[in-house]
Amino acid sequence: MNEFRWPIRIYYENTDAGGVVYHSEYLKFYERARTEWLRNLGFEQPELLSREGVLFVVRSMQIKYLQPARFNELLEVSSRLVELGRSRLVFEQELVRGSEVLNQATVEVVCVSGVTFRPTMLPTSIRRQFEKASS
Amino acid sequence: MNEFRWPIRIYYENTDAGGVVYHSEYLKFYERARTEWLRNLGFEQPELLSREGVLFVVRSMQIKYLQPARFNELLEVSSRLVELGRSRLVFEQELVRGSEVLNQATVEVVCVSGVTFRPTMLPTSIRRQFEKASS
Amino acid sequence: MNEFRWPIRIYYENTDAGGVVYHSEYLKFYERARTEWLRNLGFEQPELLSREGVLFVVRSMQIKYLQPARFNELLEVSSRLVELGRSRLVFEQELVRGSEVLNQATVEVVCVSGVTFRPTMLPTSIRRQFEKASS
Amino acid sequence: MNEFRWPIRIYYENTDAGGVVYHSEYLKFYERARTEWLRNLGFEQPELLSREGVLFVVRSMQIKYLQPARFNELLEVSSRLVELGRSRLVFEQELVRGSEVLNQATVEVVCVSGVTFRPTMLPTSIRRQFEKASS
Repeated sequence: MNEFRWPIRIYYENTDAGGVVYHSEYLKFYERARTEWLRNLGFEQPELLSREGVLFVVRSMQIKYLQPARFNELLEVSSRLVELGRSRLVFEQELVRGSEVLNQATVEVVCVSGVTFRPTMLPTSIRRQFEKASS
Repeated sequence: MNEFRWPIRIYYENTDAGGVVYHSEYLKFYERARTEWLRNLGFEQPELLSREGVLFVVRSMQIKYLQPARFNELLEVSSRLVELGRSRLVFEQELVRGSEVLNQATVEVVCVSGVTFRPTMLPTSIRRQFEKASS
Repeated sequence: MNEFRWPIRIYYENTDAGGVVYHSEYLKFYERARTEWLRNLGFEQPELLSREGVLFVVRSMQIKYLQPARFNELLEVSSRLVELGRSRLVFEQELVRGSEVLNQATVEVVCVSGVTFRPTMLPTSIRRQFEKASS
Repeated sequence: MNEFRWPIRIYYENTDAGGVVYHSEYLKFYERARTEWLRNLGFEQPELLSREGVLFVVRSMQIKYLQPARFNELLEVSSRLVELGRSRLVFEQELVRGSEVLNQATVEVVCVSGVTFRPTMLPTSIRRQFEKASS
């Protein structure tokens, strides 16, 4: 199963005066979950940069705000790698409260050179792990 | 001309260890610009809530990261209202450095009741101003 | 032992273009740790507000930046309640990397009424737990 | 007169579910004001780093939350340089609503080398401007 789940606790820092989670905070939750997805596959980003010379940047994102997340809730992000190109990855991510989907995002990420910041081919060792995770 | 421009200065608070603006910060810039677009039409959000009983929430967003914004830059957000439904608005927004577009977003906003938080018809007085601004 | 420890992972969201954790982010880490300290004593803040009519606000803070925290590190906040008045609490908190103290804060928190937002006496049931935790 | 004033508009991004400005956001306001204080004296931080090899970091801070700032308010930060050492600066800063002081901070800043990140003497050209601004 290629879904990765990561818990997210909502603190005051994430909320706004509307009483719910501020709309840009969801992007942080999704990035934490992608970071932990990477870590779960054995990759630490500082080492990817120093050893392989690559980092990952978000190129585009679609996000749907279905239901608001609220202060103090313990939620989960589910993440799936749904496309794997030469340098391009697409993730489907959801923030869920039990079986209820609160928020959905499709996130396009690109592997770039840490020197030129231009798209570069995913190193083979990384690609192999990603293929396993998306199959 | 229905384009509204608002200046954005990039401070340390907006950047990350990659040396550029953190990807969720752009959503704040776009919201500041929509707030100022509203203010420029004569609407203050606390009064819209207390007098008209409505507030605006983001329902969905598409965002493209074309070029990174950097520490200390003075940029601009341009905002245009491109769709105006009964309770639904769509904005096209861009973060620009002079003539260069760094970031683009399409933002779907819904007018909701401040009591039920369900979509509600845009009050007529507001709609009239929005129509002028989008024509 | 009245020290409470809570793990903090540093994500990109916490860093700035200086390559280290942005200075206001430490306040979030300390608040997360106080929230978890409360939860560990059996108190959920939404219930404290709805049942007891109280909430906690920060009245003052002293913070020392000794060493920077960095991207991807897994750190800990240690929290101790060092003063317990009628409505006033003082916490000593530290962000540590193993045995190295990176950051220190003394945080004065006040119990306020959820209606008037003025200082109010700590409810007895809460005080009793706090006394145990600070002894 | 050595006081520098800078306007701060409160947006949703700055607030929390308590309905007021989240306590760590004040640190951002104070840093924006110090950045603009520097700019007003003719110094851009990227150039201070590239030409003089220095940057400024916060070493300690005391902050008092007197009254909450609220959504949509247009406030001001007043900043004064009150101590000027070889590498160390102390600022007194306040967030004000007209004549009412909402928040106060004393901020100790250190000039550090952009290479070693250790305290270094303020370059003379900078010191001269700072002396004027603090007299």
